[in-house]
Amino acid sequence: GKMWKIKYPNRAERYDRGCCHSCLHYVLDYETPKTLVIQSKAVGFVFRFTQLLVILYVVGYVCVVQKGYQETDSVISTVTTKVKGFAYSNTSDLEHRFWDVADYVIPPQGDHSFFVLTNIIVTPNQTQSRCPELPTPSSICTADCDCTEGHSDPRSNGIQTGLCVNYSDTQQTCEVLRWCVISHVHAMLAAAENFTVLIKNSVTYPKFKFHRRNIMPQINSSYLRRCEFNRITDPDCPIFRLKHIVSEAGEDFQSMAVKGGVLGILIDWSCDLDWWAGKCYPKYSFQRLDNKNPNNSVAPGYNFRFARYYKTPDGEETRTLIKGYGIRFDVIVFGTVRPE
Amino acid sequence: GKMWKIKYPNRAERYDRGCCHSCLHYVLDYETPKTLVIQSKAVGFVFRFTQLLVILYVVGYVCVVQKGYQETDSVISTVTTKVKGFAYSNTSDLEHRFWDVADYVIPPQGDHSFFVLTNIIVTPNQTQSRCPELPTPSSICTADCDCTEGHSDPRSNGIQTGLCVNYSDTQQTCEVLRWCVISHVHAMLAAAENFTVLIKNSVTYPKFKFHRRNIMPQINSSYLRRCEFNRITDPDCPIFRLKHIVSEAGEDFQSMAVKGGVLGILIDWSCDLDWWAGKCYPKYSFQRLDNKNPNNSVAPGYNFRFARYYKTPDGEETRTLIKGYGIRFDVIVFGTVRPE
Amino acid sequence: GKMWKIKYPNRAERYDRGCCHSCLHYVLDYETPKTLVIQSKAVGFVFRFTQLLVILYVVGYVCVVQKGYQETDSVISTVTTKVKGFAYSNTSDLEHRFWDVADYVIPPQGDHSFFVLTNIIVTPNQTQSRCPELPTPSSICTADCDCTEGHSDPRSNGIQTGLCVNYSDTQQTCEVLRWCVISHVHAMLAAAENFTVLIKNSVTYPKFKFHRRNIMPQINSSYLRRCEFNRITDPDCPIFRLKHIVSEAGEDFQSMAVKGGVLGILIDWSCDLDWWAGKCYPKYSFQRLDNKNPNNSVAPGYNFRFARYYKTPDGEETRTLIKGYGIRFDVIVFGTVRPE
Repeated sequence: GKMWKIKYPNRAERYDRGCCHSCLHYVLDYETPKTLVIQSKAVGFVFRFTQLLVILYVVGYVCVVQKGYQETDSVISTVTTKVKGFAYSNTSDLEHRFWDVADYVIPPQGDHSFFVLTNIIVTPNQTQSRCPELPTPSSICTADCDCTEGHSDPRSNGIQTGLCVNYSDTQQTCEVLRWCVISHVHAMLAAAENFTVLIKNSVTYPKFKFHRRNIMPQINSSYLRRCEFNRITDPDCPIFRLKHIVSEAGEDFQSMAVKGGVLGILIDWSCDLDWWAGKCYPKYSFQRLDNKNPNNSVAPGYNFRFARYYKTPDGEETRTLIKGYGIRFDVIVFGTVRPE
Repeated sequence: GKMWKIKYPNRAERYDRGCCHSCLHYVLDYETPKTLVIQSKAVGFVFRFTQLLVILYVVGYVCVVQKGYQETDSVISTVTTKVKGFAYSNTSDLEHRFWDVADYVIPPQGDHSFFVLTNIIVTPNQTQSRCPELPTPSSICTADCDCTEGHSDPRSNGIQTGLCVNYSDTQQTCEVLRWCVISHVHAMLAAAENFTVLIKNSVTYPKFKFHRRNIMPQINSSYLRRCEFNRITDPDCPIFRLKHIVSEAGEDFQSMAVKGGVLGILIDWSCDLDWWAGKCYPKYSFQRLDNKNPNNSVAPGYNFRFARYYKTPDGEETRTLIKGYGIRFDVIVFGTVRPE
Repeated sequence: GKMWKIKYPNRAERYDRGCCHSCLHYVLDYETPKTLVIQSKAVGFVFRFTQLLVILYVVGYVCVVQKGYQETDSVISTVTTKVKGFAYSNTSDLEHRFWDVADYVIPPQGDHSFFVLTNIIVTPNQTQSRCPELPTPSSICTADCDCTEGHSDPRSNGIQTGLCVNYSDTQQTCEVLRWCVISHVHAMLAAAENFTVLIKNSVTYPKFKFHRRNIMPQINSSYLRRCEFNRITDPDCPIFRLKHIVSEAGEDFQSMAVKGGVLGILIDWSCDLDWWAGKCYPKYSFQRLDNKNPNNSVAPGYNFRFARYYKTPDGEETRTLIKGYGIRFDVIVFGTVRPE
């Protein structure tokens, strides 16, 4: 039962011929292993079953589960946010003051990162002028010769003028040139926890020409006007109450509002575009991103200083310095889409 | 013609010896399949040709086309943008008003995301004071007892003072504490379509110490001073006319300017650093990133409120509230470089 | 010594039976190559040694070095920055002026990208009014008929009113409506090189529930209050002197301060979470991201224009236009963590 005519040359004969001819022989010789055919049903069954397992692994695990055949693409995303709500501060300092979006959202653009003021220390009517330093070991003086004109200590707040002046009835400190502080007023926006934010997020996967947004097609406008995100009852609503976001991240809004912090709103767009994989929708999660109670912290929480500049009727520049504590919300979009 | 001396021990003999010795035998036995050498040129040719195809596939497809041998690295990019142009609003409301870059680009820094004002509703001279609510079912009142001091309805715009006051000759509404509105003025910056933006983009692939910018080395300064991006005639010019960007994205500038929107300027740096792959240059594309005409939208378009704060000569704070509609341009840089 | 009973059917016999029976035979036939067992210790040793090398390669290189068994995850990062320091400009123009954080950091939020003013051209007291154009070939005129009302040349700075007015004693130019410029003042903040910035960076790898921050647990608060980053002596300190950052990037602060630029602070979180890989800590590097001295540049350096708006006592709006040159610091976080 042989299919091929086989000639067994002996070694000597092969090497006797010309080199080229001999090489060609080697190149065109086809070696195949001799095989035994074992006609046992038991052995054959075990053998084919093993083959089946290998095929199932390749098709089932590598192709279907791991989708080894698929390319992936990272997300290109755009986010706009719009905060709503107003607050009313009634601390004795700032009398009754009303705060709306243009007052407490910084910057106002509604980008993927927005900041909501919750706690404010205002220093109004600052002018550039000369005033005594706060008393510290290096600023206390007894005569002008203790102060050096033009000297600026990084730990102080201004440039010394060279004079030693009265800070209080009992203390003298060096005079400095700076934005002088007359008084501080303090306000807390406790109502900020009830502000809501609408997050609009569109994602694009350029390689797959795939475009999707977080407001799903089945949601209608009247629902959007009154809904509020809740993981169980309203998981698709893009309007979030700030207090709810913070508590989902395991924090308490009012205690976070005092010192400020950074809170991440994570939108996970990990999607599978295979037809059997169901629809592609965003999954929201919330997480505090700064460190709450570290043992080793400088400047815990989140705050920054900014100023509003005014001119007095006689043309002098004054400013109101605001040290604002608050919560920065960072909308972070991630995920990998697998194409159809 | 055997090269090795082979001894066929019978099974019994092998197991008779000490276990260790027997094990060692198994470990050092070398099994090799018996092979047939078929000396047929036809068969040999088919065999070698098949081998050649496999080698060509590995070298040609896996190595050259897919570059399976290459590592890839994601891009680290920096973008600066600079808008130029001015506009002139001559609606009856705002008399003749001139707008330059410092007026209409927000924020001014020229980051990877910049916003150009196109449509403005200005509410000047707001002061914190008491004024009647707009008439709604919940704000209309007939006597003071209909209004609750300190009550703030999220759908209203302020905190009730507890008084019921005249809104018009025929209607009474609750008085609220808020930034009171005297009048609105409206302006449209139609000339914004002719603004230009210079985009400077540098990319770095830290793993490959590769650095490139979107202003190609062969471009000279005099060309840069007068050029304008055009996919066909000037594909390398980094100066873009806003109207052109918007129309490349398939939109009309003037209709997008009314409600605002978000437009992506996509810079694709997918590069191949193999020497035969030619130079590495950025490919620009433009795409509207927000949803234009959804059936289910809240707050369609793109706008935000911001305020400028002033002080009156007697020290009272007033503000000008601006509701700005416009186009946010997001420069999105992506791409994977394959190293040399 | 045969383990299986083998029947060698001849071809004719097999094809004589029914097709199905014959097929089943083929399906359940088990083919195994005939092997030679060569009992030579030398050959066996070479053979097993080669096998050992293959196993060592797979375990040692693929699994341990390349960690082919590991999944990787990209970093989600949050950055807050806080600049400290003050400067004093004593150019004759702006008299003595003091600058603190609220004056020179733009935007004030302390995001991953912050800008420090180093060189300022201030144009105070601009009002919207009519003034002669700067003399250029297209703006010089001899009579009103040379100027067209409503015409705006993109290269000019305003909209023509149609009048030809005196620019100087010898020249007449068209009058335009614009923010008129009275004078410029110039200031340089040389002390900016001694400002320090505290960078707080938290990273999260959502797939691995791994969270880490750049302030390492072993650092205590008193160290943080006085330390300053230095690659050799203080590599873990998160407080950076601006001059040091710029010089690590191979640039000179004072020369970069004149025209401005963009400087990247790269934080590399490439980590290996295998237990033997040691702790995971950030590696800082610094790099200038814009092009320093290109042959072909438009608008070299980094600057932008912004305005502060004021109202005069009689309600007219004025603005102070500031053209600010400075250094934008972009904190760029990258890296891939490999899980435990």
